[in-house]
Amino acid sequence: MSLLAIGTVAFDAIETPFGKTDKILGGAATYIGLAATRFVKNVNVVSVVGGDFPESYLTMMQNRGINTDGIEIKKDEKTFFWSGRYHNDMNTRDTLDTQLNVLESFKPIVPESYKDCEFLMLGNLDPEIQKQVIESLPNRPKLIVADTMNFWMDIKLEALKETIKLVDVLSINDEEARQLSGEYSLVRAAQKIMAMGPKYLIIKKGEHGALLFNQNEVFFAPALPLEEVFDPTGAGDTFAGGFIGYLAQSKDISFGNMKRAIIFGSALASFTVEKFGTERIESLTEEEIDVRVKQFVDLVQFDIELENSL
Amino acid sequence: MSLLAIGTVAFDAIETPFGKTDKILGGAATYIGLAATRFVKNVNVVSVVGGDFPESYLTMMQNRGINTDGIEIKKDEKTFFWSGRYHNDMNTRDTLDTQLNVLESFKPIVPESYKDCEFLMLGNLDPEIQKQVIESLPNRPKLIVADTMNFWMDIKLEALKETIKLVDVLSINDEEARQLSGEYSLVRAAQKIMAMGPKYLIIKKGEHGALLFNQNEVFFAPALPLEEVFDPTGAGDTFAGGFIGYLAQSKDISFGNMKRAIIFGSALASFTVEKFGTERIESLTEEEIDVRVKQFVDLVQFDIELENSL
Repeated sequence: MSLLAIGTVAFDAIETPFGKTDKILGGAATYIGLAATRFVKNVNVVSVVGGDFPESYLTMMQNRGINTDGIEIKKDEKTFFWSGRYHNDMNTRDTLDTQLNVLESFKPIVPESYKDCEFLMLGNLDPEIQKQVIESLPNRPKLIVADTMNFWMDIKLEALKETIKLVDVLSINDEEARQLSGEYSLVRAAQKIMAMGPKYLIIKKGEHGALLFNQNEVFFAPALPLEEVFDPTGAGDTFAGGFIGYLAQSKDISFGNMKRAIIFGSALASFTVEKFGTERIESLTEEEIDVRVKQFVDLVQFDIELENSL
Repeated sequence: MSLLAIGTVAFDAIETPFGKTDKILGGAATYIGLAATRFVKNVNVVSVVGGDFPESYLTMMQNRGINTDGIEIKKDEKTFFWSGRYHNDMNTRDTLDTQLNVLESFKPIVPESYKDCEFLMLGNLDPEIQKQVIESLPNRPKLIVADTMNFWMDIKLEALKETIKLVDVLSINDEEARQLSGEYSLVRAAQKIMAMGPKYLIIKKGEHGALLFNQNEVFFAPALPLEEVFDPTGAGDTFAGGFIGYLAQSKDISFGNMKRAIIFGSALASFTVEKFGTERIESLTEEEIDVRVKQFVDLVQFDIELENSL
């Protein structure tokens, strides 16, 4: 297996009802990489940062198993910066500031050593860039997973549709699924979106869990009921990284294995929200992950024997 | 087992984005009874209707296994009437009209033949009336389940707390759990509410499923992703009726069996929302229920082996 992830590596400044941070490490590819390396080592990341990006962050990522050779450093520019404030429900947020900086002219360069990848994770980015990455690979990966957001549906819908055509698994949230399909029912939305290309669709519902669809099946994974959601930033990317990392480790892309991958992704995401930024996901132990996955098993398992053999 | 259900038997007039009804059969006890009789026959219902209540509705209820002897008919008064309009999301609604009519002076009279009940379902009603019913029984039932709503939290909170003290299982929705506890986190809300008396708490989250808590465990049942939610009226009462009916049939009130009861209740509720009013739940077959329950199993089942034996 080889796993390539593309996405932002960024600074975030976050306000929640529980506190606020200065500029801390953030970005989709950061969370994806930190989650995926729980399952596979040498996760290849393609991204771009500015000269202001601390060496210590790169070192931490390397120590956790991320290959940072593909993270371009533009010495005279500044790192992408996002700042947001979460509302009391922690499901909605206001963007306070977005400074694209290095992202404005980002042309991802996939190093030669990364190109023979079996698993490709396209973090949320301009869909044209996502497409360029797919087209830059000499062989089609075994599995392409893409994340996106409503922003691209608003301003680059046609480009987004072109990219979606090329991916195997699309990961979006419930409101985005409704926007992209024009259907309120998530079942109908899923059918319409899968007709656009992806064989699988993940619909993330935040504290309400996630749905995985293919043409004939649907799987639901709950989110763990937590006493406190401290900071939701990065939860979706952690989920995606855990999902593709688990699949890459097991080299099995059956629906049954995708269910397991969703549970592991959900378990990792449930850690990310416990502290600000990447703090919790950086320090996780194997045993903590297993205990958490066991909690998911206990949360949903039940035992019913039906009289009719169905 | 004997199962006693108390609640409204009513007329509803419903508007949804898909259409509207004239006055049709509704009421908490109606849905509870129609659901519970899927599991146990002779569900004893205590309620009140007016002289305008059609005999044919009572006959239908009797044919479905509901004992209507406890439904008082006040010939010179009118049946409780509720009218509401659902918004596009089908999760929120406006009440257009409420005519209490017979409910205004409702003093539930539990027939002698009903009094030795093992399972008691208190449908949403004035908490003082719910308490009177509990106190009118010579022996405490094996299990008391109560439903309530934000309306009573707004105007009769102290009385509601007195009633809650006496019940085993409280069933409310997520917003009501937050209102009753003053906690946003449902985990914290559940702890606070169980400290008020109930050993078990069910938090209904509509299209997002339901949670069952006791002091040490939590179980999550999803709602089935449906192509269309046609009319949510009665879904919560159907769920409650299925829940207590299943428990009464199996005479097992362990947490493990409550999980199964939640799944059966959710399955029945998923039918209720497919058509207006009681139409769908009236005509259900055993096999349809089993097929639906199997869909719940398929929706959430996954198979993970953890390396550490936890």
